[in-house]
Amino acid sequence: MHLLVVNPNTTASMTATIAAAARAAAGPSTVIEAVTSTMGPASIEGYYDEALAVPGLLAEIARGERAGAAAAIIACFDDTGLDAARAMATIPVIGICEAALSLASFLARRFTVVTMSQRSLVPVAELVRRYGMEPRARVRALGIPVLELEDPASSVVAVLRGEIARALAEDHAEAIVLGCAGMADLAVALREEFGIPVVDGVGAAVKQAEALVALGLATGKRGAYARPAVKPYAGLLAGFGLEGKAVA
Amino acid sequence: MHLLVVNPNTTASMTATIAAAARAAAGPSTVIEAVTSTMGPASIEGYYDEALAVPGLLAEIARGERAGAAAAIIACFDDTGLDAARAMATIPVIGICEAALSLASFLARRFTVVTMSQRSLVPVAELVRRYGMEPRARVRALGIPVLELEDPASSVVAVLRGEIARALAEDHAEAIVLGCAGMADLAVALREEFGIPVVDGVGAAVKQAEALVALGLATGKRGAYARPAVKPYAGLLAGFGLEGKAVA
Amino acid sequence: MHLLVVNPNTTASMTATIAAAARAAAGPSTVIEAVTSTMGPASIEGYYDEALAVPGLLAEIARGERAGAAAAIIACFDDTGLDAARAMATIPVIGICEAALSLASFLARRFTVVTMSQRSLVPVAELVRRYGMEPRARVRALGIPVLELEDPASSVVAVLRGEIARALAEDHAEAIVLGCAGMADLAVALREEFGIPVVDGVGAAVKQAEALVALGLATGKRGAYARPAVKPYAGLLAGFGLEGKAVA
Amino acid sequence: MHLLVVNPNTTASMTATIAAAARAAAGPSTVIEAVTSTMGPASIEGYYDEALAVPGLLAEIARGERAGAAAAIIACFDDTGLDAARAMATIPVIGICEAALSLASFLARRFTVVTMSQRSLVPVAELVRRYGMEPRARVRALGIPVLELEDPASSVVAVLRGEIARALAEDHAEAIVLGCAGMADLAVALREEFGIPVVDGVGAAVKQAEALVALGLATGKRGAYARPAVKPYAGLLAGFGLEGKAVA
Amino acid sequence: MHLLVVNPNTTASMTATIAAAARAAAGPSTVIEAVTSTMGPASIEGYYDEALAVPGLLAEIARGERAGAAAAIIACFDDTGLDAARAMATIPVIGICEAALSLASFLARRFTVVTMSQRSLVPVAELVRRYGMEPRARVRALGIPVLELEDPASSVVAVLRGEIARALAEDHAEAIVLGCAGMADLAVALREEFGIPVVDGVGAAVKQAEALVALGLATGKRGAYARPAVKPYAGLLAGFGLEGKAVA
Amino acid sequence: MHLLVVNPNTTASMTATIAAAARAAAGPSTVIEAVTSTMGPASIEGYYDEALAVPGLLAEIARGERAGAAAAIIACFDDTGLDAARAMATIPVIGICEAALSLASFLARRFTVVTMSQRSLVPVAELVRRYGMEPRARVRALGIPVLELEDPASSVVAVLRGEIARALAEDHAEAIVLGCAGMADLAVALREEFGIPVVDGVGAAVKQAEALVALGLATGKRGAYARPAVKPYAGLLAGFGLEGKAVA
Repeated sequence: MHLLVVNPNTTASMTATIAAAARAAAGPSTVIEAVTSTMGPASIEGYYDEALAVPGLLAEIARGERAGAAAAIIACFDDTGLDAARAMATIPVIGICEAALSLASFLARRFTVVTMSQRSLVPVAELVRRYGMEPRARVRALGIPVLELEDPASSVVAVLRGEIARALAEDHAEAIVLGCAGMADLAVALREEFGIPVVDGVGAAVKQAEALVALGLATGKRGAYARPAVKPYAGLLAGFGLEGKAVA
Repeated sequence: MHLLVVNPNTTASMTATIAAAARAAAGPSTVIEAVTSTMGPASIEGYYDEALAVPGLLAEIARGERAGAAAAIIACFDDTGLDAARAMATIPVIGICEAALSLASFLARRFTVVTMSQRSLVPVAELVRRYGMEPRARVRALGIPVLELEDPASSVVAVLRGEIARALAEDHAEAIVLGCAGMADLAVALREEFGIPVVDGVGAAVKQAEALVALGLATGKRGAYARPAVKPYAGLLAGFGLEGKAVA
Repeated sequence: MHLLVVNPNTTASMTATIAAAARAAAGPSTVIEAVTSTMGPASIEGYYDEALAVPGLLAEIARGERAGAAAAIIACFDDTGLDAARAMATIPVIGICEAALSLASFLARRFTVVTMSQRSLVPVAELVRRYGMEPRARVRALGIPVLELEDPASSVVAVLRGEIARALAEDHAEAIVLGCAGMADLAVALREEFGIPVVDGVGAAVKQAEALVALGLATGKRGAYARPAVKPYAGLLAGFGLEGKAVA
Repeated sequence: MHLLVVNPNTTASMTATIAAAARAAAGPSTVIEAVTSTMGPASIEGYYDEALAVPGLLAEIARGERAGAAAAIIACFDDTGLDAARAMATIPVIGICEAALSLASFLARRFTVVTMSQRSLVPVAELVRRYGMEPRARVRALGIPVLELEDPASSVVAVLRGEIARALAEDHAEAIVLGCAGMADLAVALREEFGIPVVDGVGAAVKQAEALVALGLATGKRGAYARPAVKPYAGLLAGFGLEGKAVA
Repeated sequence: MHLLVVNPNTTASMTATIAAAARAAAGPSTVIEAVTSTMGPASIEGYYDEALAVPGLLAEIARGERAGAAAAIIACFDDTGLDAARAMATIPVIGICEAALSLASFLARRFTVVTMSQRSLVPVAELVRRYGMEPRARVRALGIPVLELEDPASSVVAVLRGEIARALAEDHAEAIVLGCAGMADLAVALREEFGIPVVDGVGAAVKQAEALVALGLATGKRGAYARPAVKPYAGLLAGFGLEGKAVA
Repeated sequence: MHLLVVNPNTTASMTATIAAAARAAAGPSTVIEAVTSTMGPASIEGYYDEALAVPGLLAEIARGERAGAAAAIIACFDDTGLDAARAMATIPVIGICEAALSLASFLARRFTVVTMSQRSLVPVAELVRRYGMEPRARVRALGIPVLELEDPASSVVAVLRGEIARALAEDHAEAIVLGCAGMADLAVALREEFGIPVVDGVGAAVKQAEALVALGLATGKRGAYARPAVKPYAGLLAGFGLEGKAVA
């Protein structure tokens, strides 16, 4: 099984972290192809970065599907471009936020998501609400830029541990969800340190993608995720061949 | 990986259907142990049956955990006894309703659950609400007793197909969730017939259980799912050794 | 009017507290029969205890209905087994949580429920949500085992008074609901001390049961609370004669 | 126990219907004083009538409280002026809508309210939402003016029976709530005809008022229902002495 | 364009503040007529004051409409009598709370409303919920009587600034809504001081009223806001001629 | 006042319709600059088109802001790219869906949105939920491609009229919102034909933009709409200069 994992930001070192987490989670017959988007921001923090990351992300998924990927994973906790990708592709597409929230909901009645940037707090809280987890999940932000996760000298892990401690004390959290793809390598150590489930979305999404493929399930193609209608696309984006997906 | 699948009703022929669906979904290294509860009703239709099925179900999960199961699946769409089982066990426990709704939410923005008995309509609708899927999922009931699924001469499949057709037309459903463990063998044929995703909870739960075990995740043990306190249990139920789980 | 009040835990001293509160609330022509369940845990703290208390509870209600009770009250704040009991019985069945929340809603726009065990916090919060009181009610837990209420030397009342004070200051609570049947004897003194309504569920449920009986109202028997279908029940629980209720 | 039942519309014949229902529900030691407001519309259908009925209603409750009433009931299904009355009075005040919805919620998981005028449909639906019953209750309107209930030649009862039949078939209603005080005399006959619980708010409110008084509970006087501040009131309404209530 | 702005309390000095804010917001061709109600409380703090302010308010709107006003604004943050006024009038009617919340929702994902009296906290929170802003807006009260806004020696502005600072720190507020008509003159200074949007409802409502008139839109007259039915009105209120509006 | 109205699809004839509606709504001192995006799909129907329209849209808003526009309007009913645009820009940005829903909420308690493509049904319903209008608004789709609005021979207007009639009969709609920018020219005629408010989002957004500018209000720049952080952007999109906005 060939799974495509797209890092929708353009920072290759973060893709390495993501790829390692994906491979650690993957089953023995799963091949992980982890790619870095070539178009968009170096990190995704809030609505603006998110919007500009989508075309590059879609281009990678379209390419991956043509190359035979069985499913695609969007490795950004904002589930950037997820609905557009599902409408475009015929293979299943999984976002790491929705995958992580699902698994957390099997482990705890109340849990807390810890994300990086203050700009991401509201977008992630809106995802929590959209996925129906609002009565049981809270969202906290560290107030640290995402790219600090790539800096070994950063104090980000210490700040994260402090925030997890506050979530346990103040939110009655029974589990923690790591709210950034770049935190994927921290899940196991934090789980052991705090003695609670700590869910990383990258691993969660790999298992969900494997599940859908194994069960022969793919995105429904009537209604919201119907294949886009055939129509002209103008401008530079037309060069990406995305509109070709719209041919019935 | 040893997965315990408990049919919480006492009808062995339904366990056979469930076991087949579980094995079809399981990965190559997963061993499915499918058991029939020895205490409770022959089928679970509504709140009363559900309540009386729980002690037998818990006894099976306690026994399975002692025998080394890596995770347990409750194979009744009411997710009967799920919270109690999670508090009791240390291994992960998955309900087929929550598993099916999660996978369906990755495939469609709107979907419809089709259950059997009219008595189950409200309990299933309450689960849909509890799992946060109320804005996107509707529930329909066939108005047919569950045990008719065991009768080859029954017209239940024809009625089910009619209800799916109505869900597509009236609910704008983009996917269907089969709302009874006894329907597990119908998913593939219905998917092909209607050209939409049809999700069976048994297969879905197997993949979720495999996912949790593979990722090293187990139920959070603070708060709602904390291990039950040590205390006396009186009466016949005391003979099941369930209270033994309460020893710290 | 003969009202059955079932203490679904197996601690007789708590039944005495409950019986006294019920009799203090009852009208002059009401006879309170307070019984202790003979099967289940010594106290009900969270999902596991709750599930194992249900068969014993149902057996008492079935027996009481045969003996001519006009209505039944479930005297545990988790409203343990309430839906199953309503489906089984033809007489009205009232839970003390739903009764207390209803009366509190007539007295205050915002109120706080104070329960005992941390394990009960989420189950009670889910009841608050299920009964539609989420926008106006908060839930607090003392973090003390229920059975300490039976210990005259315990500091539980002092802790309770502290938590009520915090609810007034932090939650803007306009009334307090006592979230455990074992607190029933404290309502009047706390009401006088704090100068706010303090609602005990046992008294509240007695009045609701009297109301339904006086008005000639009983549980609706179509849909969710339809009489259980006739079917075989296996195992030790079959000895309770509960399945006899399923005969049409 | 002296209960004040205020018909906030100015139609005395409807007060007679209300008084009869209240007396039929009242306990042996309860004295029902049923009064007709002297100021406001002849019937209350929608927001405008509701607003103009409030001063007359408040005047009656203020007078009744001075005369020693133990509790007051607002006998209009819009719960007209309920919050203002609770803030003004120290005795408990009950609305017939909230009382009826509470009792119905003890009898059924899903129920339907049938009101008279199309103008009342949205206000009653907003009450259903405000009281937390939205997930389980629907509202239907007969599209007939309220005062037709006072006309023996009217076909209103036939139309009501048709609407109840539709609620059973289309809403899966398990109980019916009569959504107008003027329907109070119809509950028993409809209950027998349809074999389901039919809840009348007037009787329901009498029992709730008796319950609060028997339990020694009165409106919380901090926050939303705090006694109004002392301040000048101008204009004709000043003549009603209502502002006198505001003296600390 | 002639806009009627009604101060529904009877304090003329507050009308002056409101009129100034309305005129500052109005377009060049808009004429603001600001009137003080002649019947009701000197300030509106909570449900009781609100109810008694409605008849005087309706009388002013009815008079204003007869005099040719193109739209009416209710200048009290409780949106006192708004639904009744909309049913009565044919011209558009705007409440300052709904207008302010709408504009704030265009400027921020999360915002905080700061109101005056503790009695208003719950009514304003209920409006926030009714207008669909509950997931994104919080409400705070200063705990100061409204009329202190008319006292130049009062410390109310200092307290308000402290509360805004807390909203920024604790609520993650991105904008502030001033929750009292009497605060209208403070918006610009606070906006500059805190560097965030500060929305005053009076100005907001003037622009919304201008918008509706310019677009030729008026209240829908079927359903909830249908013109009141013709019927007798009794008592002193009958002298206001309001019932005349009910003639078809 | 210079208002920028961006048609985020690339069909110039639809921009002409939008521009006419905007100019008809604009105040005498407002200058409407209506532009067609140069990059993206010819019409926006569902998530995929929406995502690919955003970069072109953002480029136009960035250009317009540099050229001195006082506010920007996104003239697609999906409110395409609205959050990203608000984070990017310092001038206010208004979406036609949010503007139309706001105005409709001032005119009716219940209303129905009629959109074009079946692919847009769920995205628009999600907007209705996001803007807090879910309890009062329904969404219907004509099942006709957007570009048929540009075809004078199309039967789309007849189909639209039929759907409005169904909304009045089945949804109890009190007002209609036109759910596509291309319908802007139909509002007045439909309003007269059906005798109810018919709200067009383009005109509504023009008035909201004028309101914000007149009141001196602009997007809050802390939290969700904080200015994007300075960081590298890769790929073709970097050529648009959008990342220049991120310089502090």
